[in-house]
Amino acid sequence: MFKKEIYKSRRKELLNRMGSGIILLIGNDESSINFPDNWYRFRQDSTFLYYVGINKPGMMACFDVDSGEEWLVGDDIDIDTIIWMGNQPNMKEMADSTSINGVMSPSECSEFLQKRLNSRELHILPPYRRGHRNRYKKLLQMGWEDLENKVSSELISAVAEQRNHKSEEEIAEMHRAANITGQMHLSAMQYARPGMKEAEVAGFINGIAVSGGGDLSFPIILTKNGQILHNHYHGNTLSEGDLLLVDCGAETDMGYAGDMTRTFPVSSSFSSRQKDIYEIVLAAENNSIDMLKPGVPYRDVHLTAGRIIAEGLKNLGLLNGDPDDIVQEGAHALFMPHGLGHMIGLDVHDMENLGEDVVGYTNDFLRSPQFGLKSLRLGRPLEEGFALTVEPGIYFIPELIRQWKVDNKHTQLINFDALESWYDFGGIRIEEDYLITANGAELLGEPVAKSVKDVEEIRKEVLA
Amino acid sequence: MFKKEIYKSRRKELLNRMGSGIILLIGNDESSINFPDNWYRFRQDSTFLYYVGINKPGMMACFDVDSGEEWLVGDDIDIDTIIWMGNQPNMKEMADSTSINGVMSPSECSEFLQKRLNSRELHILPPYRRGHRNRYKKLLQMGWEDLENKVSSELISAVAEQRNHKSEEEIAEMHRAANITGQMHLSAMQYARPGMKEAEVAGFINGIAVSGGGDLSFPIILTKNGQILHNHYHGNTLSEGDLLLVDCGAETDMGYAGDMTRTFPVSSSFSSRQKDIYEIVLAAENNSIDMLKPGVPYRDVHLTAGRIIAEGLKNLGLLNGDPDDIVQEGAHALFMPHGLGHMIGLDVHDMENLGEDVVGYTNDFLRSPQFGLKSLRLGRPLEEGFALTVEPGIYFIPELIRQWKVDNKHTQLINFDALESWYDFGGIRIEEDYLITANGAELLGEPVAKSVKDVEEIRKEVLA
Repeated sequence: MFKKEIYKSRRKELLNRMGSGIILLIGNDESSINFPDNWYRFRQDSTFLYYVGINKPGMMACFDVDSGEEWLVGDDIDIDTIIWMGNQPNMKEMADSTSINGVMSPSECSEFLQKRLNSRELHILPPYRRGHRNRYKKLLQMGWEDLENKVSSELISAVAEQRNHKSEEEIAEMHRAANITGQMHLSAMQYARPGMKEAEVAGFINGIAVSGGGDLSFPIILTKNGQILHNHYHGNTLSEGDLLLVDCGAETDMGYAGDMTRTFPVSSSFSSRQKDIYEIVLAAENNSIDMLKPGVPYRDVHLTAGRIIAEGLKNLGLLNGDPDDIVQEGAHALFMPHGLGHMIGLDVHDMENLGEDVVGYTNDFLRSPQFGLKSLRLGRPLEEGFALTVEPGIYFIPELIRQWKVDNKHTQLINFDALESWYDFGGIRIEEDYLITANGAELLGEPVAKSVKDVEEIRKEVLA
Repeated sequence: MFKKEIYKSRRKELLNRMGSGIILLIGNDESSINFPDNWYRFRQDSTFLYYVGINKPGMMACFDVDSGEEWLVGDDIDIDTIIWMGNQPNMKEMADSTSINGVMSPSECSEFLQKRLNSRELHILPPYRRGHRNRYKKLLQMGWEDLENKVSSELISAVAEQRNHKSEEEIAEMHRAANITGQMHLSAMQYARPGMKEAEVAGFINGIAVSGGGDLSFPIILTKNGQILHNHYHGNTLSEGDLLLVDCGAETDMGYAGDMTRTFPVSSSFSSRQKDIYEIVLAAENNSIDMLKPGVPYRDVHLTAGRIIAEGLKNLGLLNGDPDDIVQEGAHALFMPHGLGHMIGLDVHDMENLGEDVVGYTNDFLRSPQFGLKSLRLGRPLEEGFALTVEPGIYFIPELIRQWKVDNKHTQLINFDALESWYDFGGIRIEEDYLITANGAELLGEPVAKSVKDVEEIRKEVLA
């Protein structure tokens, strides 16, 4: 946990942002794997972590915006639990540790809420785990149809606005997360060898995340089929000539996430084609980084990256026409169907549970429905304190190319004939995490080999 | 997956065991971590894996016991999913891969069930994940109060009886799981050094489980506080003189679990006290293994292990009186409050979701409510094909000792004064997995260093 004053002042700011009413935050419960008591590692709700900081299952917190009163809600543990789980702080001690005065059991809280809500509005956040709705229903003794309108857009906006701006102590944690993440990537580059299963490399770097004291911030993507964007299959064997795309991140024991991608050759060097594509992706990434500063809409950064990709693929004979037209029409999105990046913080896609648009867009700056752009999670003008990923990529997705060809989509702009020999290329992505500063942006974590030269140097050493 | 004939014959046996009706098995869905689309690694329901073998989220299977008809239930995927998740077999191909003829979408299944259940009984298994009830409710268009009595003790017993007896191909998988698990333990012994954080060792062996192609079979217990039985905190630093208790297991990519424990000194050798306790636990474990064969109630093995522990602690001056009386009264359970073992298979506590007693006890052989014995998950007479853990331990749990002392519990049998100097000892457990054979038992996996001599040899080499 951070110092208790930090949580106190975060809550104070939240209450100031809200007009009136009762805020109820629920922490997460344990989540069963294959029988009730076999649990996935516990992951606290991020908003609960942000305002309360207590990393235990089954907790809630309740704030009265009007009176300023605060309660931590939960049960003290019994001797049976102590035998199996060790001695634990009691509710009062936990409340003290985050500077909350009041303590209630869930049943006390239930009674309290039912009384106080006669005259006051309740504010809750959207449920996102199976079980959240039932906890609200039980606590408030209402059906979900009556509870749904308690999901408070006012609370959502207040939380998103506050969490979108990272504070000093958060930035330090995010550097830590990015450094463990960087270590995972460097280790993968130094470890992977032809003949290994993808799972062997994935296991090795998974271990590094856990060794860092936290865990993975999301399931590892580690694949020779980088064109499959969310590929969690690790059963293939690495061979000379393959590209290995690794997209992974660690989260610290406080919950802050890293999220990076590197793509490197299983052989000691890139093939000529691989190098061509890699250099385009790298140019798009470096140019995007150069553009980062307060006031610049991230959608513009995304589209400029698209232009560099369009230009590069045109030079390779895969696209035709004016790169600006290509981007305008969205034809380049055949090769990069995803967005350039997203906010990152206590969640790898920060606050995606509150709604992507409330985090990454504003009322004046709406998401485009165009293929490609519709998958851009962050489009709004950047502000100091935002933390985000920059992750351009180029992919050759046979199913998508075939479908666009059959649909005669962008036939003037896409050279489908030339693409025939690229179906088995795979995909390349490069991703880093940046913090927006007063005048530009700062890389989170220490740099990790990224240029063709630096990557090949490592691979040559490994395979020597 | 195993060969498709295996699933076909398992289902045939299940249908033969059941009298009549419709069996509905639901596979698991994805489970969210901190926002809807950030998922814990997918873990299929084990009974679904056993009878159907398809390791994908959102599936169901439906068998008509009377007609012998079988359906796989699920939705084909769309192009959007293919772009993000790669090409996948369609429903018909998946059904073929497990020799099921029929295919239905969930909505077709919903209609089908509502019609056919007019004249037939429905058999379902108990829900154990948040979300299971809702899936049943949605599919069957009934409230849980009407569905609860569809949870079929007939189906539960049939499944438990069948899964309790491991077949040849399952045994091969369990050896594989135990071997990866053994590798985790050997690696921990070879890797741990004074000054390391527990998390560093935990991460290293977590990586080995994932490298094996599957994952952990349960969250790693790795602690210098072995007296805390389910301790998942890994924040302590290892020091000379500490004992490190490691209880962990891998599951294979087919879902079969390993579960072993080793306790070793962070220094190059055990202290004299540590050795004393270790030898008692080891003697209890070896004697238990010698007793394993068909016909022997596992409760007797548990109690005999208790007698060895009682005798050993009496020799150290911590218990008084006749060891048989000590065990009869349950006074030794102060030091070993848990059971000697449990069934293991597709779940580390096999089929705990069906109910511990239906797996580990019989109608003629009921669980004792006595402290210690009440935590014994497996008590029934052993049968050929059972796979189980043998895991005696001795722990000094300060909170429990203090409570028994205050309560004047077993004051004739327990030497509370002598115990004063043992409060900070910690705990020792040794655990291996065994298969019951026609005449005895077979260790699952290759042996891993277990004697004081073998363990110290490894530690000496590491610290040399």
